[in-house]
Amino acid sequence: MIARLADIAAAAGVSTATVSRVLNDRPGVAQATRNQVLVAAGRLGIPTGQPSAARDRHVAVLIPELGNPTFAAFANELSLLLSAAGRVMLLLVIGPSRTAEEQMPDVLGGLDVPGVISVSGTLADELSSPERYLGLNRAGIQLVSINAWHPEVTGSFLSTDDAASVAQSVAHLRSLGHTRIGLAVGQRRFQPTQRKVKAFLDLGFDESSVVSTFFTGEGGQSAAARLLDAGHTAIVCGSDVMALGAMREARSRGLDIPGDVSVVGFDDSALMPFTAPALTTVRQPVAALCRAAVDALLSALERPPAESTEMLFHPDLIIRQSTGPAA
Amino acid sequence: MIARLADIAAAAGVSTATVSRVLNDRPGVAQATRNQVLVAAGRLGIPTGQPSAARDRHVAVLIPELGNPTFAAFANELSLLLSAAGRVMLLLVIGPSRTAEEQMPDVLGGLDVPGVISVSGTLADELSSPERYLGLNRAGIQLVSINAWHPEVTGSFLSTDDAASVAQSVAHLRSLGHTRIGLAVGQRRFQPTQRKVKAFLDLGFDESSVVSTFFTGEGGQSAAARLLDAGHTAIVCGSDVMALGAMREARSRGLDIPGDVSVVGFDDSALMPFTAPALTTVRQPVAALCRAAVDALLSALERPPAESTEMLFHPDLIIRQSTGPAA
Repeated sequence: MIARLADIAAAAGVSTATVSRVLNDRPGVAQATRNQVLVAAGRLGIPTGQPSAARDRHVAVLIPELGNPTFAAFANELSLLLSAAGRVMLLLVIGPSRTAEEQMPDVLGGLDVPGVISVSGTLADELSSPERYLGLNRAGIQLVSINAWHPEVTGSFLSTDDAASVAQSVAHLRSLGHTRIGLAVGQRRFQPTQRKVKAFLDLGFDESSVVSTFFTGEGGQSAAARLLDAGHTAIVCGSDVMALGAMREARSRGLDIPGDVSVVGFDDSALMPFTAPALTTVRQPVAALCRAAVDALLSALERPPAESTEMLFHPDLIIRQSTGPAA
Repeated sequence: MIARLADIAAAAGVSTATVSRVLNDRPGVAQATRNQVLVAAGRLGIPTGQPSAARDRHVAVLIPELGNPTFAAFANELSLLLSAAGRVMLLLVIGPSRTAEEQMPDVLGGLDVPGVISVSGTLADELSSPERYLGLNRAGIQLVSINAWHPEVTGSFLSTDDAASVAQSVAHLRSLGHTRIGLAVGQRRFQPTQRKVKAFLDLGFDESSVVSTFFTGEGGQSAAARLLDAGHTAIVCGSDVMALGAMREARSRGLDIPGDVSVVGFDDSALMPFTAPALTTVRQPVAALCRAAVDALLSALERPPAESTEMLFHPDLIIRQSTGPAA
C-alpha cells in the first residue's frame, strides 16, 4: 500500500500523510484536497471505496430558536438520546429569517446527513411552503417532525395533543368555579394555535374570549390586557412565556394571582416552579416526544416507513400556585 | 459537457443527473456515490476541481448543554450573528459524557469545518486534558474559546471577568450593610469557580465563607443551607440557577428575601425578572462576548492570529428585588 500511497500523493501533488488521511477518512484535510486525492486515485486505477461511515452517524436537528426554554429543552433531550444511540447531533437554529430552513436541502446535502428531526418547523405555518421539506423527501433524507404536520410531506409526525391540553386547563378552571375563561395564544397561522382555538370553541366558548398575539412575554401581556378588560377571571395561555407576561399584566393592575385572576401556562419549561407565583401549566411531554422521534428516525433509516402518520402525545396538567377559586 | 457527463455516469455506474449533482456540489448524493463519481472522472482524465465552498461556510459551536438558559442564550446569540455573517452554525452539544468533545477532531474533520467556537468547554476544567483542543490546532482548525482558557492551546480566548463580578456583588451587599457574606459556587476544578473564589478571598473573606457544590438548583440550595447555618445574611452565587436554589432554601426556613437574607445571582439568564422575588444578578456580557467571538473567528479564518490572548469582558450588576438592607 505504501507504494500506492506515494503514487497517489505524487499524482495529486500532496503528501503521503494526506493521502493516508483521505483514504482512512480522517479529519484535517480540506474537501478540495480530499477530492484531488480521490480523483488522482481514480486516474491511477487504484480503488478507494471510501466509506461514509462517519457521516452516516450524523443526525440534523432543526429548531426555531434557543431563547425559548422549551425549544432548548427539546434540543437538550434530543442531544442526550442521539448521543446515547451513538449518533452525533448537528443542531441547526432556524432563526428569524429562517435561513437554516431555506438552505436546508443544500446544507444537509453538503453534510451528507441521512436524517432530520425538525422541531416546530415551518410545516406548522400555513403561510409557509412545504417545498423545502419536499426537497428532503426527494433527496431520500428521512424526516421526523415534532409539533408540525403536513399532508403532502412524507415523514413521521409526532405532536403534543393541543386539544387535550386546552380541555385539561378548562376543566381545572371550571372545577374552581371560573366561567369567564379567556384563551391567549400566538398567531393563527400556526397549527398548534389553530388546534387550541378549535378545542376551546368546541368547549362552548365564543370567539370574543380568544385573543391571538405572539408567543412572547409581551404577547401574553397584551392578550391578558384585552381579556381582563372584557371581564375574564381566568386566562389559559399558549405558552409559559405568554403566561409570565399575562401575570405581569395582572400584577400591574394591582390584581392578585390567584386571588383575583387565575393563569395557566403551556410547556412547563425549566424555571416555572421558581416564578412568582409558581405557574400552573400543562407539561408538554418533551421526553416522550423526543424518545419517539429518535426511535422513529433510527427505524426509518433502516427501513423507510410505508406511510406517514401523525401520533398525538398526551400532556399533563401540573397544578401549582397561579390558579385558585373564582373570586 | 453533456457527453462527458454521460461518460462519467457510465464509468461510475450512476445516472447523468447524479454526476451533474456531484460536479455542481448539489445535495442529495451519498458520500460513497459522490466519491465514485469523482474517482470515475479522475480515471477518465476529466477535471472536476470541486470547490468546498458550501462547507467552508460552516462554523461549529460547542456548548456543554442546553438545559441551562445561559448556554442556550450563548447558542442563540451565536446562531444569529453567524447567520447574519452568512455562515451556517452547526451546534454540537457536549453532554454529560462529553462525547461531542471526545469525538471533536473526528467529527469536525468529517464536516470539514474550518473553525470552532467553544463555550465553557473542558479547557476550563483543570482535571481535563487539553489534548482534543490541541488536535484542532494541529488540524489547522481555528479556535475561539469563551469562558475557558488554556496556556498550551492556540486560539482566541474571551471570558467574563469573574473577579469583577464578585467585586460588584460584594460592594453592593456591603453598601446595604451586610458583613456576613457567603459565596456559593460550583466545583473548584473549573476556572470560573477558581477565579471567583480568589477574588472573594482577596476582598478579605475567609475560606469558611465559601461553599463549593454544583452549578444546579440543588447545589445552590445545599450551599445556602450551610452558609445560613453559619450565620450569613447574604449569599453571592456562581449562577442564577444556584441563586434560585438558595432562595428556595431560605424560603423553606421561613426566611424573607430580602428582609432576612439577600441573594445575588450570576448570568442574568432569560427569566430572572419573573422569579419571586425578581433576582438581583450580575449580567454576563453574552452579546458582547458572542460578537467578539464571531469577529475573532472570521478574522482568524482570513489570517490565523500570531499569538493567543485572553480578553476579559466586564459584567454589569442588575439590581432587582432579592437584595436589601442587612437585618
